Amino acid sequence: MMASSTSSSIEHTMLAASEQLQVPSSITKFKIGLCQLSVTSEKNQNLACAHNSIKAAVKCGASLVVLPEMWNCPYSNDYFAKFAEDFENEDASPTFSMLSEAACSHGITIVGGSVPESSDGQLYNTSCVFGPDGKLKAKHRKIHLFDIEIPGDITFKESDFFAAGDKPTIVDTDVGRIGIGICHDIRFPELAALYRAKGARIICYPGAFNISTGELLWEVMQRARAADNQLFVASCSPSRDSSGSYAIWGHSTLVGPSGEIIATSGHEETVVVAEIDYSKIELQRKGLPLDKQKRADIYLS
Amino acid sequence: MMASSTSSSIEHTMLAASEQLQVPSSITKFKIGLCQLSVTSEKNQNLACAHNSIKAAVKCGASLVVLPEMWNCPYSNDYFAKFAEDFENEDASPTFSMLSEAACSHGITIVGGSVPESSDGQLYNTSCVFGPDGKLKAKHRKIHLFDIEIPGDITFKESDFFAAGDKPTIVDTDVGRIGIGICHDIRFPELAALYRAKGARIICYPGAFNISTGELLWEVMQRARAADNQLFVASCSPSRDSSGSYAIWGHSTLVGPSGEIIATSGHEETVVVAEIDYSKIELQRKGLPLDKQKRADIYLS
Repeated sequence: MMASSTSSSIEHTMLAASEQLQVPSSITKFKIGLCQLSVTSEKNQNLACAHNSIKAAVKCGASLVVLPEMWNCPYSNDYFAKFAEDFENEDASPTFSMLSEAACSHGITIVGGSVPESSDGQLYNTSCVFGPDGKLKAKHRKIHLFDIEIPGDITFKESDFFAAGDKPTIVDTDVGRIGIGICHDIRFPELAALYRAKGARIICYPGAFNISTGELLWEVMQRARAADNQLFVASCSPSRDSSGSYAIWGHSTLVGPSGEIIATSGHEETVVVAEIDYSKIELQRKGLPLDKQKRADIYLS
Repeated sequence: MMASSTSSSIEHTMLAASEQLQVPSSITKFKIGLCQLSVTSEKNQNLACAHNSIKAAVKCGASLVVLPEMWNCPYSNDYFAKFAEDFENEDASPTFSMLSEAACSHGITIVGGSVPESSDGQLYNTSCVFGPDGKLKAKHRKIHLFDIEIPGDITFKESDFFAAGDKPTIVDTDVGRIGIGICHDIRFPELAALYRAKGARIICYPGAFNISTGELLWEVMQRARAADNQLFVASCSPSRDSSGSYAIWGHSTLVGPSGEIIATSGHEETVVVAEIDYSKIELQRKGLPLDKQKRADIYLS
């Protein structure tokens, strides 16, 4: 919905600024692991399952691992408050501890999907990013909560349970600059464009699209965000639980900078491991310089 | 790539302005015809073929007919100048005359694909829109010319032959407010967002994606523009000519406001006729109010 020459100059300022930042440039090729986890109503089981899945991804060579949205907790109002943790109090947060230890012991970067966060009496749908030293590098609170009411199809109001985040999240990691969005955040092209302008080379979207919206738009959204911004997009979903009240689409996917699917899955529990080669970004942007072809003067009309 | 609260306030100003404009509101349901034409090196044959295809669409009930990009002329530098017409000199423009007469005699709106336009010593890739009275209602000159160089895949430089347009095109017709883009214009989400903000209910993209980019992105781009802006997107391509130097993807398509494909085709010469029901737009926007869920304050960050 954005269209102005003013914003274009902001964008170019941001690009210039991002170029001056210290972006780790040594790594151009690495493997990403997408842990499509089965989520149960036993938190300890979910933590163990996630840790095992991270190990499996590492065994396949992944140095960046992404978990799904809401992976330590069933996607249901009955569980959110009970499963929520306060990340400020690390010692009392088993989810924080497991992710931190896993990142450190394996020497990898983890985009920790999302889990319910309790903070100042509010609940947030929050993703934590850990570096190979086990330290928390960034925390993204889902910005766009999923409120939908299509009669006969789907009704859901996430804002009944969660408060919304109010910041985009860009994080410099050992595997490059990453933008974070959670699920419905992907529906907003402005957020992806902002991450592109700030120099992200990959956007990670932990998500839990339902089968209705999932079949229709999960792939289209990822491919459009990647192609429009000429960067990598990685999504990670829980696996489908046919006994749960919320039927999840699955299909964790890695998309490349020309909008091509590099790797994907079905809806079962699995780990997708695939190679990210950042030179593809430069190749694509050089061959088809969409950014230079933009006409910000016209979009303002 | 746009992200600023300034542009957001512009957008909202535009929305308010568009609401005050006289948008024909009587029609909420009608049929659209997409004429996927075979293009030859004989202009008269192309004109006759297009006219026949328009008649076939009308026979199926279409009150809006869309033609492909570059339908009166082979997509080759050898032909552009020779086939170009000056629309200011209507009497000397057989393409203009045919479209005007067809719109008038059938009482329909025609988005006349695109053809090479000669004006002030320049060539443009131009789409003319005619109303049921046969009068020219709008003229869109392709804004984003297709310059690409991906070694081993595709190299093309449209700006060697054509000058670029410098205006978006929104037109009020008997079948509602329409935004026009030509082919590569679809790669720029900002243009579609602008049309949405100005009240377009459908965006028509005559296009001639090649088989490489077409297979990868033709459908994804249309569905993302429709879903992101919650409006209809119609595309119309020439059919594939296996003997031509430029292999065209085809697949003329109508997409609805939740990103769903309503009707599409293969790559052969054909006419796609399908129903547009504008009430789907209101239903979708009411059930999932993406515009209200946007966080322009954040995209500026």
